[in-house]
Amino acid sequence: MKFSVSSNELNKGLSAVIGAVPSKATLPILETILFESEDGKLKLTATDLEISIIEYIDADIEEDGAVAIPARRLLETLRQLPNIPVFFDVDDRKNINFRTDKGTYKLVGDDADEFPEVPNLDEGTSINTTTELMNNAIHKTLFAVSSDDLRPAMMGVYFQIGTDESKFVATDGHRLVKYTNKEITADNDVNFIVPDKALSLIQKTIDGDECDLTVTEDHARFKSGGTIVITRLINEQYPNYDSVIPRDNDKFLTISKEQMLSTVKRVAIFSSTTTRQIRLQLGSDKLTIRAEDLDMSSEAKETIECEYSNEEMEIGFNAKYLGDVLSNIDDEEVTFEFSSPNRAGIVKPSEENENEDILMLVMPVMLNSYA
Amino acid sequence: MKFSVSSNELNKGLSAVIGAVPSKATLPILETILFESEDGKLKLTATDLEISIIEYIDADIEEDGAVAIPARRLLETLRQLPNIPVFFDVDDRKNINFRTDKGTYKLVGDDADEFPEVPNLDEGTSINTTTELMNNAIHKTLFAVSSDDLRPAMMGVYFQIGTDESKFVATDGHRLVKYTNKEITADNDVNFIVPDKALSLIQKTIDGDECDLTVTEDHARFKSGGTIVITRLINEQYPNYDSVIPRDNDKFLTISKEQMLSTVKRVAIFSSTTTRQIRLQLGSDKLTIRAEDLDMSSEAKETIECEYSNEEMEIGFNAKYLGDVLSNIDDEEVTFEFSSPNRAGIVKPSEENENEDILMLVMPVMLNSYA
Repeated sequence: MKFSVSSNELNKGLSAVIGAVPSKATLPILETILFESEDGKLKLTATDLEISIIEYIDADIEEDGAVAIPARRLLETLRQLPNIPVFFDVDDRKNINFRTDKGTYKLVGDDADEFPEVPNLDEGTSINTTTELMNNAIHKTLFAVSSDDLRPAMMGVYFQIGTDESKFVATDGHRLVKYTNKEITADNDVNFIVPDKALSLIQKTIDGDECDLTVTEDHARFKSGGTIVITRLINEQYPNYDSVIPRDNDKFLTISKEQMLSTVKRVAIFSSTTTRQIRLQLGSDKLTIRAEDLDMSSEAKETIECEYSNEEMEIGFNAKYLGDVLSNIDDEEVTFEFSSPNRAGIVKPSEENENEDILMLVMPVMLNSYA
Repeated sequence: MKFSVSSNELNKGLSAVIGAVPSKATLPILETILFESEDGKLKLTATDLEISIIEYIDADIEEDGAVAIPARRLLETLRQLPNIPVFFDVDDRKNINFRTDKGTYKLVGDDADEFPEVPNLDEGTSINTTTELMNNAIHKTLFAVSSDDLRPAMMGVYFQIGTDESKFVATDGHRLVKYTNKEITADNDVNFIVPDKALSLIQKTIDGDECDLTVTEDHARFKSGGTIVITRLINEQYPNYDSVIPRDNDKFLTISKEQMLSTVKRVAIFSSTTTRQIRLQLGSDKLTIRAEDLDMSSEAKETIECEYSNEEMEIGFNAKYLGDVLSNIDDEEVTFEFSSPNRAGIVKPSEENENEDILMLVMPVMLNSYA
């Protein structure tokens, strides 16, 4: 195999696929990147057996071939090079010689046949959307994914692709986000759970205009520009999240997001370091947030103006979850919906785009006074 | 004690002294910051018993007093506040109430008498210089300090203050830097070793124009603007570093610093991960740098143009130490001085300011071929 490639182009390609190279691989071959010539392009593949990333880059292929090259050593070298052409020459014994006008380098590669096969997703449900819409759906939900191994279904974002609209749901049991978008659709309904690591890598790597998704029973493939990300799906039943969303809310509070978020952050510092519990006291056009830490004899109280005209109510939250939800709302004003202190609070941006709808939910905590 | 202070001013003061608050304190009082009123100013003190930082800030003192306030909780709160006035009210039982127009906060403090006494350095040798000169001397040497507990003398920078010039020396046995400056002087000679942690904190905190140093047998005090840093000195004999600096060098090599540094970094990637050994081959106006890793069957070779006209020579270095020394030279060109492959290499910037002189030294490593 012989080819020459610009160091910038190769660097970009390697940086994209490196996300799938495990930091500590059980199989040494997983620490390599598969280089293949394909239709005059250079195809790079990396996999950790769960997630695979493929990147096609422009190169001048002089002699077709394939070889698995040690990933980190190659990428480190490329990162230290200015933008210059690099010439690769791989012999039959997988000795990889490459040179630039700066010097010559030698690595030993592995046989391309030893590289794990990446699932072929030529059949399956197909969803065509844009990278912008897909990244937005991921961005809006990813933060709420659970990291609890004991609830594997919740360790990913639940995609509910429909013919009229699609929903993307994430929850860790403390907070939940449901993002609905009318512009992402498919010819038939399909539901699947994509692991969070795959979604982070998709966000980082895909950069074409269009984004084409193909879904089979076990896998999903995201294709955009010269990049393909293939991930195994989480084969679990997603919890029936709709049942925890209260429908009969009668208490509405509208407030500045920034003001509330900074208040939550300040007051939380004075909360118990174990529970992180803060109290929201809803009164006429006024929200008081309090926290106390009995161990440290510390306490804090702040009052913010808001729009609220229902009866007085006190509800407790974990400051971390409330803060997370607030930071992930893209609007200057947020609206809270409450029914009672022992039911979830709903948070929404005050204004929304026509084609999308976002609903966040935070579970309350029992306040000492109710115990 | 009663006072009001702008949150920005207090934040700046707390951020400066927090460096001396240990992250895990054996004595709980060390996790507090001592607040004292002094001549209409607010004096903040933090200490880990080795290093103390004092910061004077402007405040409106309504009632004199002193109290030790939990450091991190207060600083966290201040960091979350916009620039607004904060009113403090401390009662006799050390309840600290503070309020802003946003809300009210309560902490419990400790008795100021429990706070450790900070050494008084009214006597001692005095050195008056500028913050710029002092920071420069620290910056040029700090990187080479040893972190080896078994050689405590080398865990700081050796200050040799003289009547005509001063020297600042740091070494970890693998590389050495000696920085000489004619503008820093004292009325009589004084030598002492300042621990590296104190020097890092001095670099971060002092920001006045002048910098006044006072040195006693056990302590040094750095005073600049409203900031005072007091540190215990390392009471050890500094090694006789002059004996390792070769004087009879006959081989001079002048080379672009950036080019050599990037070559060292690239080639080093192909060196053995245990030894990090690279070889420098000096030839007529040409420097070849090579590395090989027998375990991985990888190797690299680059050649750079340089000025060199002596006989050919090969010398081995640890790429990390050579790279460190090169990155810390502030000139486009560097000059190396060598005598033989088993003696230290000297590195200097090609041009120097009139009043300063910098000499760096890297110990060679034995190449396999000499074994």
